[in-house]
Amino acid sequence: MTDTTETPVTVIGLGLMGQALAHAFLKAGHPTTVWNRTGAKADDLIREGARLAPTVAEALTAGSLTVICVTDYPAMYELLGASDIELDGTMLINLTSGDSAQAREAADWAEKRGARYLDGAIMAVPPAIGTAEAVILHSGPESDFDAHKSTLDALGTITYLGADHGLASLYDMAGLAMMWSVLNAWLQGTAMLRTAGIDAATFAPFAQQIATGVAEWLPGYAEQIDSGSFPAEVSALETDARAMTHLIEESEAVGVNAELPRLIKAMADRSIAAGHGGEQYPVLIEEFSKPGDA
Amino acid sequence: MTDTTETPVTVIGLGLMGQALAHAFLKAGHPTTVWNRTGAKADDLIREGARLAPTVAEALTAGSLTVICVTDYPAMYELLGASDIELDGTMLINLTSGDSAQAREAADWAEKRGARYLDGAIMAVPPAIGTAEAVILHSGPESDFDAHKSTLDALGTITYLGADHGLASLYDMAGLAMMWSVLNAWLQGTAMLRTAGIDAATFAPFAQQIATGVAEWLPGYAEQIDSGSFPAEVSALETDARAMTHLIEESEAVGVNAELPRLIKAMADRSIAAGHGGEQYPVLIEEFSKPGDA
Ligand SMILES: NC(=O)c1ccc[n+]([C@@H]2O[C@H](COP(=O)([O-])OP(=O)(O)OC[C@H]3O[C@@H](n4cnc5c(N)ncnc54)[C@H](OP(=O)(O)O)[C@@H]3O)[C@@H](O)[C@H]2O)c1
Ligand SMILES: NC(=O)c1ccc[n+]([C@@H]2O[C@H](COP(=O)([O-])OP(=O)(O)OC[C@H]3O[C@@H](n4cnc5c(N)ncnc54)[C@H](OP(=O)(O)O)[C@@H]3O)[C@@H](O)[C@H]2O)c1
Repeated sequence: MTDTTETPVTVIGLGLMGQALAHAFLKAGHPTTVWNRTGAKADDLIREGARLAPTVAEALTAGSLTVICVTDYPAMYELLGASDIELDGTMLINLTSGDSAQAREAADWAEKRGARYLDGAIMAVPPAIGTAEAVILHSGPESDFDAHKSTLDALGTITYLGADHGLASLYDMAGLAMMWSVLNAWLQGTAMLRTAGIDAATFAPFAQQIATGVAEWLPGYAEQIDSGSFPAEVSALETDARAMTHLIEESEAVGVNAELPRLIKAMADRSIAAGHGGEQYPVLIEEFSKPGDA
Repeated sequence: MTDTTETPVTVIGLGLMGQALAHAFLKAGHPTTVWNRTGAKADDLIREGARLAPTVAEALTAGSLTVICVTDYPAMYELLGASDIELDGTMLINLTSGDSAQAREAADWAEKRGARYLDGAIMAVPPAIGTAEAVILHSGPESDFDAHKSTLDALGTITYLGADHGLASLYDMAGLAMMWSVLNAWLQGTAMLRTAGIDAATFAPFAQQIATGVAEWLPGYAEQIDSGSFPAEVSALETDARAMTHLIEESEAVGVNAELPRLIKAMADRSIAAGHGGEQYPVLIEEFSKPGDA
């Protein structure tokens, strides 16, 4: 961790997340230069050994890579867009949250100014940064990722997704959709079970087991999507739809929210109306892939 | 499997599921009596060694327990309700799907007629019956469950939930809500990633990992619900809500369905409007526990 060959790095943006990133680089022994609009946020890091650059321009030249993590993409353009800021030859790793179109535009913009650019998405909270729990997704040129991965390893579990700069954002959003969906389904079940006096702790291991078990089906179900063929090997969508009616009725009968059950059924009903009632669940990809009217 | 002490059993209702149940009992060596409204559905089972009872009444006296599995509860009442059918002293295990209120009513009805009654729910498709994959949930008097568990073991992974007869149905519905939610979140993510040319098979292991990882949080989150206190140890609901906006925008921008993202945000927004923006995600239990207006 105190290897003298550690790479010098720069962190721009010292909000909650930027401070955690700089802290992790310092802890891993990387000479770390920082910059933030509000300079006082660098105080703790300076005490830990960080160097505060007097200007953004100087911050950019201090490290062999610059991680930027600010509120949003407009803030990044405001920071780096000034005409006296030289990006030519810099390696930017943008961990600011945004959507896939913003990431692709930023890559274009940075590359036109002579920078190398990787886009990233942090799937973690600041206290997890620097541990294996912090998954940080990257997309952009693979050679740039390979060149800097060992430095980025200080931040967490560093993952590469592909050359399209939009991928980090897309995977991030897809991961969050999964996170909230597992939590919401668990809350739906917990609410139902509590009407029968079952506490959340009793139900949780059951919910965990189902989520983990169903997740194991995904690689197999993915083959149906990629082949575009959905034989009802296990169960047909119209059989599922009947049980979805039971879920709605049970939710209403015990007096809990039924919006999630109703959305589940609405998606299935549309697919059945489109003629897919005899096929298997993943055929719903067709409904999920189009805008929809609600 | 061919132990001569195997218990004689009865299966009433030989649809797809009832036939699978009877087959599993036979395979485990239990002398098996069957009955179905449409007698021809017993033909295969008779060839495998089942005995066809001439009447429901005789079927009920043939085994030391009777598993009934028909379309719905009204079908069960039609079958067992005739005045010449003696339930006194029988042990009924009803694996027909229904809701928790129907299960409790049926228990009442059966017990008033002198029967012992367990309600069950089958979380499996017919081909899985007789394997450990087939989880079958039971609720009702624990002593009845204990007395018959070793016989029921022939059918799959036999689980006991508690004395309240409604529990099997509630857990079943909660499990299905989890199943469809994991699948839908995966489909949402798959639809998003496909807009960037990523195939379903590439995304599936990532989705699986997230679902499994989030499921591990549930026992800890359950403690917050049971204590009624939701400190933002990891992240506050209003931080989640900002990322939910990104998920909606990203879904719309790439042209996929955004109904699931919008429902996720709507639930969170309501909780924030109720003053819980600074608390942690499980505080949403309050929204999931009330009827809601959509
Ligand atoms: N916190 C998390 O749990 C978390 C998790 C995953 C991803 N992220 C993402 O990480 C990024 C940063 O989040 P955070 O939690 O660190 O936010 P934060 O604490 O609100 O910090 C925002 C940072 O952006 C800077 N900034 C905003 N507008 C600026 C502008 N116009 N010019 C220059 N600097 C500007 C701020 O500078 P000042 O200090 O001068 O205001 C501050 O350094 C966001 O994109 C967020 O979505 C955060
Ligand atoms: N199949 C599955 O994947 C699955 C999974 C989990 C749970 N279940 C549950 O298991 C139960 C049975 O499902 P299944 O797939 O076996 O259905 P099924 O193939 O449609 O069979 C229905 C059974 O109910 C009988 N029945 C219906 N109405 C009746 C009446 N009024 N009087 C007497 N008998 C009547 C039918 O008799 P006839 O043969 O004379 O019509 C038949 O034996 C349902 O509650 C279902 O929800 C099924």
